[in-house]
Amino acid sequence: MKWWGWGVEGVGFHHEDKPGFAPFVQKAVGLDLWAGERTERPDFSELKVPASRAPEEFVTVLSGIVGAGNTVVDDLSRVVHTYGKSLRDLVRIRAGEIARSPDVIVYPADEAEVQSVVDAAVEADAVIIPFGGGSNIAGSLEPHPDESRVVVSLDLGRLGRVLEIDADSGLARIQAGALGPDLEAQLNRDGWTMGHFPDSFTHSTLGGWVATRSSGMQSDKYGDIADIVKGLRVVRAGGVLVIRAVPSASTGPSVREMVVGSEGRLGVITEVTVQVHRLPERRGIYAYFFKNLDHGLAAMQEIAESDVSPSVTRISDAHETGFSLATSKESKGIQKKAQAGLMAYLKRRGWNLDEMCLSFIGFEGGEAHAKRQKSLADRIVRKHHGIGVGKGPGALYDQKKFDTPYIRDFLLDRGAAGDVSETAGPWSKLRGIHAAVYEAADRAYEKIGRKGWTMSHMSHSYHSGACLYFTFAFVFGDDPLGEYDTVKRAIQQAFLDAGGTISHHHGVGLEHAPWLEEDISTQGVAIMSGLFGAADPGGNFNPRKIVV
Amino acid sequence: MKWWGWGVEGVGFHHEDKPGFAPFVQKAVGLDLWAGERTERPDFSELKVPASRAPEEFVTVLSGIVGAGNTVVDDLSRVVHTYGKSLRDLVRIRAGEIARSPDVIVYPADEAEVQSVVDAAVEADAVIIPFGGGSNIAGSLEPHPDESRVVVSLDLGRLGRVLEIDADSGLARIQAGALGPDLEAQLNRDGWTMGHFPDSFTHSTLGGWVATRSSGMQSDKYGDIADIVKGLRVVRAGGVLVIRAVPSASTGPSVREMVVGSEGRLGVITEVTVQVHRLPERRGIYAYFFKNLDHGLAAMQEIAESDVSPSVTRISDAHETGFSLATSKESKGIQKKAQAGLMAYLKRRGWNLDEMCLSFIGFEGGEAHAKRQKSLADRIVRKHHGIGVGKGPGALYDQKKFDTPYIRDFLLDRGAAGDVSETAGPWSKLRGIHAAVYEAADRAYEKIGRKGWTMSHMSHSYHSGACLYFTFAFVFGDDPLGEYDTVKRAIQQAFLDAGGTISHHHGVGLEHAPWLEEDISTQGVAIMSGLFGAADPGGNFNPRKIVV
Repeated sequence: MKWWGWGVEGVGFHHEDKPGFAPFVQKAVGLDLWAGERTERPDFSELKVPASRAPEEFVTVLSGIVGAGNTVVDDLSRVVHTYGKSLRDLVRIRAGEIARSPDVIVYPADEAEVQSVVDAAVEADAVIIPFGGGSNIAGSLEPHPDESRVVVSLDLGRLGRVLEIDADSGLARIQAGALGPDLEAQLNRDGWTMGHFPDSFTHSTLGGWVATRSSGMQSDKYGDIADIVKGLRVVRAGGVLVIRAVPSASTGPSVREMVVGSEGRLGVITEVTVQVHRLPERRGIYAYFFKNLDHGLAAMQEIAESDVSPSVTRISDAHETGFSLATSKESKGIQKKAQAGLMAYLKRRGWNLDEMCLSFIGFEGGEAHAKRQKSLADRIVRKHHGIGVGKGPGALYDQKKFDTPYIRDFLLDRGAAGDVSETAGPWSKLRGIHAAVYEAADRAYEKIGRKGWTMSHMSHSYHSGACLYFTFAFVFGDDPLGEYDTVKRAIQQAFLDAGGTISHHHGVGLEHAPWLEEDISTQGVAIMSGLFGAADPGGNFNPRKIVV
Repeated sequence: MKWWGWGVEGVGFHHEDKPGFAPFVQKAVGLDLWAGERTERPDFSELKVPASRAPEEFVTVLSGIVGAGNTVVDDLSRVVHTYGKSLRDLVRIRAGEIARSPDVIVYPADEAEVQSVVDAAVEADAVIIPFGGGSNIAGSLEPHPDESRVVVSLDLGRLGRVLEIDADSGLARIQAGALGPDLEAQLNRDGWTMGHFPDSFTHSTLGGWVATRSSGMQSDKYGDIADIVKGLRVVRAGGVLVIRAVPSASTGPSVREMVVGSEGRLGVITEVTVQVHRLPERRGIYAYFFKNLDHGLAAMQEIAESDVSPSVTRISDAHETGFSLATSKESKGIQKKAQAGLMAYLKRRGWNLDEMCLSFIGFEGGEAHAKRQKSLADRIVRKHHGIGVGKGPGALYDQKKFDTPYIRDFLLDRGAAGDVSETAGPWSKLRGIHAAVYEAADRAYEKIGRKGWTMSHMSHSYHSGACLYFTFAFVFGDDPLGEYDTVKRAIQQAFLDAGGTISHHHGVGLEHAPWLEEDISTQGVAIMSGLFGAADPGGNFNPRKIVV
């Protein structure tokens, strides 16, 4: 991973083949893309990296456990392990702001080595921060600036194997450090899939998904990570927590559901037993247009309440639909004519194309099942005046969905912020949340005196509600993080005030911790603090995350 | 509820209209039902009830909160609130064994009164045991015999209303003391159902279901209570824990999933927001016969892995099938001939009727959906040589399922034990668990020198596994509880040794606590103990349950 941005070196977003993009950005936030990059890529040699505070004896102890080659203290490794990839992280790293870095990074080879590292670290009263793909955007990875103890980043990069598949039960035992593509490749080889595809998929790990309560875009069928995880192994001071992979149990408060979302505070997740499914015979994501968001949401809600079982339900609001159309590659020939024809037809039907919303609905399973689900969903779509436009845009979305984070770096290169914030709420409150966030963001843009842009989609449907996912952008003024905070805070507060939660699938970390009490109540925070305090009396495991 | 047994006075099991029952029992456990009752119903006036230890001033404080009429210390009320309805509870109450009773019972009218009672009790360092329907069979209700503090039984009987239905989201806010039938009646009136029907349905409450991680017989469609519960209000010392009803959230370890299964240790559940569904257009439970358990389990497993979405999947093993047929009412005329014809046909097909297994599969939803699900399931059943026998037996099962607990009292009246023990495991381990439990029970019967009977069914299917539910029976010798313990312990240990959990939906209480560490590991118990200790430092909330 790039130390200064998303993904691998040499890959990035570019707009040369997307003629609609530059005019769109100009109009949305007043940024002239033809003017080129405003900021220079940061130079690693100019970065002031705080020196490692790990005493030599302690590094020797760690080397004795994982080997000298797997115990590193060099600056580049320590910088890579300092932050996740939130906008705040990227702005700080580009500005050379590193208040506190991990002092040493270890790469254990197996659970026994993780146990030895954990025991040695606790014995030395060091801090342990588990590290997976490093894609976190909730501030769950950075050491606290005031941390005076030695900080160990425990990188699970060497624990990436699918260990066993119980074919009868569809249960796979997988090491926690497995990255999305590696994990799926190993499962696919034997005809299985886990069906978990978050936007961070290419650069995030199974252990990270569990630790942050991740959700993938096919969660309508496969469930959130909390549903997918059946068994767990978590290394704690003095021993391994083992949760058996049983389908359901009545054994008191769910320890499994305490580990899910724990962001390292209850120990180091080393192994996860997950539900896997046979690769579906048929899989398709279909695109639809709705006249406006209201009609589209009504259709999604009716589908969620019905007997239909789609794998994906998603609808972009008008702003995001405009953005999607603007980031499409230039269509040519017949395709271009077909598109123009469709738009002309919709206009004749009385649609205002500025209010039009693009939706994706996915179906998976046996041939007959997928076909039938589609026909049932189509009937509901038609009832709400939606129009199916086939598999083309869906296939494109499917291919490109993991590329979105690259746009953030593209914008940062040009002195602009583009970031995301997401929530979930009951169906009855989604329209209210949507309106409240737009209003709050607009007020915030006004406050910071910048021209801002907000867009959103609904995804991850449940019987009782769904996730609303917002993207916001503006060109930085003089105080990038101050301006960012003003907008981000306004949006988070709007979630809570309108009846949503502070996050549907990004986690809490440091970023959302200020709102936790308002979300789960004072007593909820008291229970959670009590849990962390009792489970880790020395505060050695990723301290001050989730609750301070 | 009867103080000495299950259900309401005047209702009980009888076998006069079931000609097969007496011979069956004679053969199974050597009990002669024609000999009549061996034991007399206990006489309340002979019961030695420990005196209430509640100081008058404390009772006055409580009366000041809930009113004098809702603060009771009489012996009958205190006896009714002493135990749940486990076999151990019934044997003890019939023998007049009451080591410790609650000292005072309060019936608050609303959450504010619950808060005042809780605060007063904690202030006085009293013990609070929440009480719902009193149907618990895991020993979650009884005060510890050594408890020297005043024990308050907090009965939620006056909090039984459906407060609000959010029709858009299918979310109902319901008071925790609502009994199953009352709750469903209130929901049905507006066209809704919660779809949660545990065997205890008629005498258990919403709060109790949540506190013990209950599961109902239609869990394949509606989910376990952990899935159904979206929001919660829990009164704790000093304030109310409020979990918002959002469909899913990434807000750290799930406090909602800590309250579910907490058996009163984290506070008093006063209100629950649950997922409700429109009453289905069509609902049916169909019966099938399989040649043996192996074929039947294979069919259930294939259904669970397929695109089929049934509401109920259940298969009795050969012993339980024999029992079901024996407890059927005498069939007459055409029905009798049809039955005889079916059996003759199966014999001709080479079936050994002693190995035959009865299965129920339920379907719900829109007309077309239910019909289609059935046809898909039927195809899988046929593949495994199963034979459909229509809706008759399923309808009977549906009507009679809540009557089973009455059989326990019938047997106790005749000096015999009939009790249940249940687990869940992955599909790959279910056959092993089944065999291990039979073997363990047989060894236990031999050890206590009694002729014993074991039978079982699989129910509650998940993608990765299912619940196995065992019933065991024998005629008591000289040491009823000693003999019971020998058999029960052998079965629980067999669950764990063969890869199952100690309970799928009955809870932990005192009854299963000895096995918790073996199930969720030493570290799991440490985390749970830490949670309870931190959340309730004075040990005022149902202490020593789940973990000692």
